[in-house]
Amino acid sequence: MKLYNYFRSSASFRVRIALQIKGLPFEYLPVHLVKGEHKQEKYAAISASTLVPTLETDGGELLGQSMAIMEYLDETHPEPPLLPRDALGRARVRALSQLIACEIHPLNNLRVLKYLTHQLKVSEEAKADWYRHWVRNGLELYEKELARLPKGTYSYGDTPTMADCCLVPQIFNGRRFNTDYTGLDRTMAVFEACMKHPAFDKAQPVNQPDNEG
Amino acid sequence: MKLYNYFRSSASFRVRIALQIKGLPFEYLPVHLVKGEHKQEKYAAISASTLVPTLETDGGELLGQSMAIMEYLDETHPEPPLLPRDALGRARVRALSQLIACEIHPLNNLRVLKYLTHQLKVSEEAKADWYRHWVRNGLELYEKELARLPKGTYSYGDTPTMADCCLVPQIFNGRRFNTDYTGLDRTMAVFEACMKHPAFDKAQPVNQPDNEG
Repeated sequence: MKLYNYFRSSASFRVRIALQIKGLPFEYLPVHLVKGEHKQEKYAAISASTLVPTLETDGGELLGQSMAIMEYLDETHPEPPLLPRDALGRARVRALSQLIACEIHPLNNLRVLKYLTHQLKVSEEAKADWYRHWVRNGLELYEKELARLPKGTYSYGDTPTMADCCLVPQIFNGRRFNTDYTGLDRTMAVFEACMKHPAFDKAQPVNQPDNEG
Repeated sequence: MKLYNYFRSSASFRVRIALQIKGLPFEYLPVHLVKGEHKQEKYAAISASTLVPTLETDGGELLGQSMAIMEYLDETHPEPPLLPRDALGRARVRALSQLIACEIHPLNNLRVLKYLTHQLKVSEEAKADWYRHWVRNGLELYEKELARLPKGTYSYGDTPTMADCCLVPQIFNGRRFNTDYTGLDRTMAVFEACMKHPAFDKAQPVNQPDNEG
């Protein structure tokens, strides 16, 4: 398999964790978002929507959207699972994943930050406040959702799931803007547990070939 | 089953379509977002993250996040399916769904529009431009993704899927801000096909008990 991705991209990071959890080898193909490589012809041939990551399967199929890719990996390589076996547990893990991927991350990606700067003429300070607001606000909701679930090592139970694959990159992203994580005790305990797991460590930005620090 | 939702909420509309496609009866419990009912104690007891919709199962379980709910409905009530049977097809439908639910809709929900107005002091005109920008931009990506798939009546094949459940509410939302849909031929053909399907019609905002027109 091949993964078109970018070291700092949160959605790319999610898929890298999933691949590492499952022990699946893959070719790392960097796409430099800040240099705009995702919008160039070469990558547009790979991804119609010019978003990273894209997974290229061994059969040459090109798959986009990180949660869809993780579900695909889970269906085609079931062990170890990224989702519980029961429908209710799966719904819980998907909802936690989507709380990150639909409520927090979309507000803070590169093209949105660019719109704030160039179209809305928002100051750097107000942009950073925006960033921190949505991360903090979203993770407070995550903390509240966790509080209603049985306590485990990870977000859902004692093995990492797709929810953890979404949570960890979001925590990393928020740190870049010095988001305050005070009081998010259970969420941060899950984060710390994840970072002790080799799959999460191998997948983190600093350990990627295109890392720029 | 019970559905806590709001007639105009896009995420609520998605789940209503899914329930109608599957012919599942449900009790409609309105939560008035504009009046802030989702943030009041009564609803916070239902949804930790105070978001709509919430599905209450017959067993009393409370499930959040529209895509997670649709997947749950598909797993527990498989016919007619909202996702193809093969992993690749499922990945395609999930990616299309997420292109709406992760790339467009989060930027335009009520709390984001409020932040633009109150924190960033953005004018009504600039806010409407922001809204239209993300809908148009996202649907252009949707159109490009569709162009790489075999042509069918709906987004993926000749039966409605979760992707259509996401697409149709997004088209409705964009219309409220007069988004230009010119040139999105295939996407709009899918939309028109969906609106001829009784499930989509029954689920639309104007046909809900809390509709305010």
